[in-house]
Amino acid sequence: MTAETIARLQRLVDRSPHNSWLGMHVVAADGDGVEIRVAWREEFISAPERRAVHGGVLAGLVDSGAVFAVMAAAESLAATVDLRVDYHAIPASAPMVVKGRLVRLGRSLSTAEGYVYDAENRLVASGRATVIVVKPKDAA
Amino acid sequence: MTAETIARLQRLVDRSPHNSWLGMHVVAADGDGVEIRVAWREEFISAPERRAVHGGVLAGLVDSGAVFAVMAAAESLAATVDLRVDYHAIPASAPMVVKGRLVRLGRSLSTAEGYVYDAENRLVASGRATVIVVKPKDAA
Amino acid sequence: MTAETIARLQRLVDRSPHNSWLGMHVVAADGDGVEIRVAWREEFISAPERRAVHGGVLAGLVDSGAVFAVMAAAESLAATVDLRVDYHAIPASAPMVVKGRLVRLGRSLSTAEGYVYDAENRLVASGRATVIVVKPKDAA
Amino acid sequence: MTAETIARLQRLVDRSPHNSWLGMHVVAADGDGVEIRVAWREEFISAPERRAVHGGVLAGLVDSGAVFAVMAAAESLAATVDLRVDYHAIPASAPMVVKGRLVRLGRSLSTAEGYVYDAENRLVASGRATVIVVKPKDAA
Repeated sequence: MTAETIARLQRLVDRSPHNSWLGMHVVAADGDGVEIRVAWREEFISAPERRAVHGGVLAGLVDSGAVFAVMAAAESLAATVDLRVDYHAIPASAPMVVKGRLVRLGRSLSTAEGYVYDAENRLVASGRATVIVVKPKDAA
Repeated sequence: MTAETIARLQRLVDRSPHNSWLGMHVVAADGDGVEIRVAWREEFISAPERRAVHGGVLAGLVDSGAVFAVMAAAESLAATVDLRVDYHAIPASAPMVVKGRLVRLGRSLSTAEGYVYDAENRLVASGRATVIVVKPKDAA
Repeated sequence: MTAETIARLQRLVDRSPHNSWLGMHVVAADGDGVEIRVAWREEFISAPERRAVHGGVLAGLVDSGAVFAVMAAAESLAATVDLRVDYHAIPASAPMVVKGRLVRLGRSLSTAEGYVYDAENRLVASGRATVIVVKPKDAA
Repeated sequence: MTAETIARLQRLVDRSPHNSWLGMHVVAADGDGVEIRVAWREEFISAPERRAVHGGVLAGLVDSGAVFAVMAAAESLAATVDLRVDYHAIPASAPMVVKGRLVRLGRSLSTAEGYVYDAENRLVASGRATVIVVKPKDAA
């Protein structure tokens, strides 16, 4: 199950220009959650003097953690309805790791969380999303 | 004032690798809000079959609208504490435009909104952020 | 239309124990938004030494502004999926007034905002919600 | 420590008209989080035909879980800057229980979560807040 789910999610990453640009590599995925490793890009940087990662990059990672957790559990495609992100710290080291976990799986609408860590396992950003399952016929 | 504020904000964009990657061009900025035009990149795309823009890109644009609105009004640097983004539609046309506006300017913590439109003025995403003013000595 | 919509929303308030406890009085409602006046209760107070209103009371008012704006426009019942509230100030005077307005009306999921003012028109709290339309057969 | 922290938090509840109205009873509190039992009130009900609890009541409970978790860990007073609440289910049984836990404790701004369960341990609502520590001189 798990290996199959990882492969399915990685295929979604690979066909997505933005997720490929983020360098996402799915390393774990089951009904409880996902873990995704992220490559580093200088274009992630917002304020160069502080080496801060841009809020949009971290939001995209939190979003991906949440959506992929729902897609792993629901065995279908899913899309984000809305997202909250809390910014905790500037990452001190790369690559970053994203963990996604379900808060509640619903038939149509689910709630899931994403947590972004730097390479020293320091929490950099976290948040939660309302995620809607997209039915198979809508999927490519 | 306005031309000076636009120039100041554009300099912040230009020295930021991620904002430069987003292709942000500040077209209006005063005490009430900002307007930013965004270049188009294929790497914005999340699901290629639907041409949907990735939630992280839209979150970064909502974030930028909110933070730049605070930086325009407070005449200082600012950083996002947390962010909410609502996803409304897939953009039908490029380039996108971001509008930022203040909800409430505080001494330290402010609330501001960002609205992202496609080239036909259709609302694609919107949201709000808690933004903290960063004191001049912390600025580069 | 407007008078009918006001009457319909006020009936929803009147049959709701919590909205009645909040003392909600619908004073305006149309396709663009709603305005609701709120009675004062000492039980609204959280920290008595500062006369601060509890975050849950203000959240309930922001929520009501958003949901009632959707119910006015969609001419149906609606329920909140999730809510963000920003706290701006301690109200200096009562009664408070809530304004709700639509950000985007969808077929099933909508986004709407609520703004809470004190009696001197000072912004006390504001926020936004994802709201789902509840179909007539589900309604009482 | 724990018994002292519980007693300190319960005193904050007891002097707060709204928290007293909510019937909050602090049953556990330490550096990792808090647990609060809540009495039942018919005024919690929003839609009487479905026995749904009002979003404002649940938001107040999520808020209290988050703020009390910060006050337990920081050994000081605290106030909510902003709040996100996700609504999961209608409580099937009373009384409800609130659990608060820290996501990240900062010097000034912290992130914490609140989870609300019904008497059968079903998750009814959850969310997270940005919480600011209020310095002792500001406290009553």
